[in-house]
Amino acid sequence: MSNRYCVIMAGGIGSRFWPVSRPEKPKQFLNFFGTGVSLLQMTYERFARFFPEKNIFISTNIAYRELVMKQIPGIDASQILCEPRRKNTAPCIAYAVYRIMAMDSDAVIVVSPSDHLILKEDVFRDVLDKGLAFAEKNDALLTLGLKPTRPETGYGYIQIDDYCENGINKVKTFTEKPNRELAEVFVESGEFFWNSGIFIWSGKSITEAMGRYLPDIISRMEAEKGKFATEAEQEFINEIFPTFPNISIDFGLMEKASNVYVLCADLGWADVGSWDSLYEIAPKDHNGNVTQRRSLIYESSDNIVSVPTEKLAVIDGLDGYIIADSKNVLMICRRGDENRIRQIVNDVKDRFDGEYL
Amino acid sequence: MSNRYCVIMAGGIGSRFWPVSRPEKPKQFLNFFGTGVSLLQMTYERFARFFPEKNIFISTNIAYRELVMKQIPGIDASQILCEPRRKNTAPCIAYAVYRIMAMDSDAVIVVSPSDHLILKEDVFRDVLDKGLAFAEKNDALLTLGLKPTRPETGYGYIQIDDYCENGINKVKTFTEKPNRELAEVFVESGEFFWNSGIFIWSGKSITEAMGRYLPDIISRMEAEKGKFATEAEQEFINEIFPTFPNISIDFGLMEKASNVYVLCADLGWADVGSWDSLYEIAPKDHNGNVTQRRSLIYESSDNIVSVPTEKLAVIDGLDGYIIADSKNVLMICRRGDENRIRQIVNDVKDRFDGEYL
Repeated sequence: MSNRYCVIMAGGIGSRFWPVSRPEKPKQFLNFFGTGVSLLQMTYERFARFFPEKNIFISTNIAYRELVMKQIPGIDASQILCEPRRKNTAPCIAYAVYRIMAMDSDAVIVVSPSDHLILKEDVFRDVLDKGLAFAEKNDALLTLGLKPTRPETGYGYIQIDDYCENGINKVKTFTEKPNRELAEVFVESGEFFWNSGIFIWSGKSITEAMGRYLPDIISRMEAEKGKFATEAEQEFINEIFPTFPNISIDFGLMEKASNVYVLCADLGWADVGSWDSLYEIAPKDHNGNVTQRRSLIYESSDNIVSVPTEKLAVIDGLDGYIIADSKNVLMICRRGDENRIRQIVNDVKDRFDGEYL
Repeated sequence: MSNRYCVIMAGGIGSRFWPVSRPEKPKQFLNFFGTGVSLLQMTYERFARFFPEKNIFISTNIAYRELVMKQIPGIDASQILCEPRRKNTAPCIAYAVYRIMAMDSDAVIVVSPSDHLILKEDVFRDVLDKGLAFAEKNDALLTLGLKPTRPETGYGYIQIDDYCENGINKVKTFTEKPNRELAEVFVESGEFFWNSGIFIWSGKSITEAMGRYLPDIISRMEAEKGKFATEAEQEFINEIFPTFPNISIDFGLMEKASNVYVLCADLGWADVGSWDSLYEIAPKDHNGNVTQRRSLIYESSDNIVSVPTEKLAVIDGLDGYIIADSKNVLMICRRGDENRIRQIVNDVKDRFDGEYL
């Protein structure tokens, strides 16, 4: 029996993808590329080719339990970890780790977002193998790092000490969302890698690190860990989750711990986290427009157009816009600044009392 | 009994208002200003305050008969003149004139489009009175001319000889859709008026003029005029209409006849013929945007936004665009050139075989 486990985090609401991504069906559940499968389904399939299916867990909000069941038909209800509240990645990971450790105290665990694209699956499997082997042998917190291909300002960057042969390096610094100039220096230097948000560690190492850096979150889990993988688990989680701080594993732990390593690889990787990142990876026409099958484009370039499949989009004289038509919202907004979407979503919240979100 | 009649032409498909205006419900039937009444209803009410209701005829395509009946509940079926084919204004007017003349050979007739706004109704009624009185006494073809308020390139212009006191002048030239420079000269000169497309004439004068300039259209009407206002009329019209040339009354007759006069007035008039003309007359926010109740506008100016009422429009960084979201089409296109919409509609026709129109 394998002691290798995988946790897919699928609880976000994808607000950077509003208005296409909505709380009732966030982006990880959407069929973004016209392939007929969602990002979650692509992610699950990718891991199911590597891990035994019963070793794959999907962590999500209780509201999406049915969506997960529907999209991943083979999955057992016990493999869906349901959070009663959205609390960022640290509480999410803590819960998953305690569940898995309750079943297998020798577990090594890969934790992954549900909304990444990885085009080089063969390389990815080799990387998982190498990372899991390293985590089995070392008290190390490993994150996957990607060689940056452009000065992206929306990602986190990891600086490494000295590049070593096997691709596993000690982390020197983390830098979240640098400005354009800094991002350009990072990419030039060759010392910086994109932080994928995919982690590999042993249950023991991460439990120990959480005990040190995230006591608020794990003190009660540790005290009552006998409840995990029992019928008492969900009620316990429902009780303690609302008390947790809203904190990411990067900020709360990875940037503080001393045994953090990065496994650098070229995976044909992309975060489909925002309109800008989708624009970067999507196929484009010769003027740099990302559109669908049925559109008429005049004197326009570098746009990303997303309208319902039955709809014709006619675009004239636009350069560098996001055009998103979804349900009760039409948004036309300049590309290239994720904060614009955040601002818009906040304004919609303020102005219309949650309607349209 | 009044021998004053009115014909409202409501057979167009409003393609310059695509995608909001569609063949199954063209712009004259739409509630454009959120007033709850359509342009046709506004036009009918305006004339019904001046003419006896039974003297008002609505000329339309057979396809819109039910729509007219529904929107003008008081109207008798015999007052709706149904064309089996769309053939521009000359055949439309010829049919209406022959129908009215069959009932009243002393008729004086006002012919009007169904998609104009007239804000100064009192002035309009005085103008109708003056124009009808002139047409009763003179063998004259009268068109209403409006003092231009801007160098509009989408309208027809009428040059007058010398401005005379009573406002009725001999026409010197017609100029359709001048370019910007020419339009500016026209407006500066004070000699040019917009051609409203509202005509006033006696049945005798227009019949005589049509006999000279439009023999293709009226020869059979004249030969079999006994059929008008009888049960044989519709069948006769259905038979002859398809044989008619597609020609406007302006091009086919008004620009050729020598007894053409223009009655100049300030009516608070606007042609709601196109997105640009709607933009000109619609209320705007302080940045010149025409939007609906629910929208979020960032750093944008001079746009016209039309989305379904239940939809929120979010617009960022756009200046001078038409944004029209209607049924199965989203169109975003630069304002200020009607030909762009024509081009788009033609391209949609060519590319998608009539779908989306």
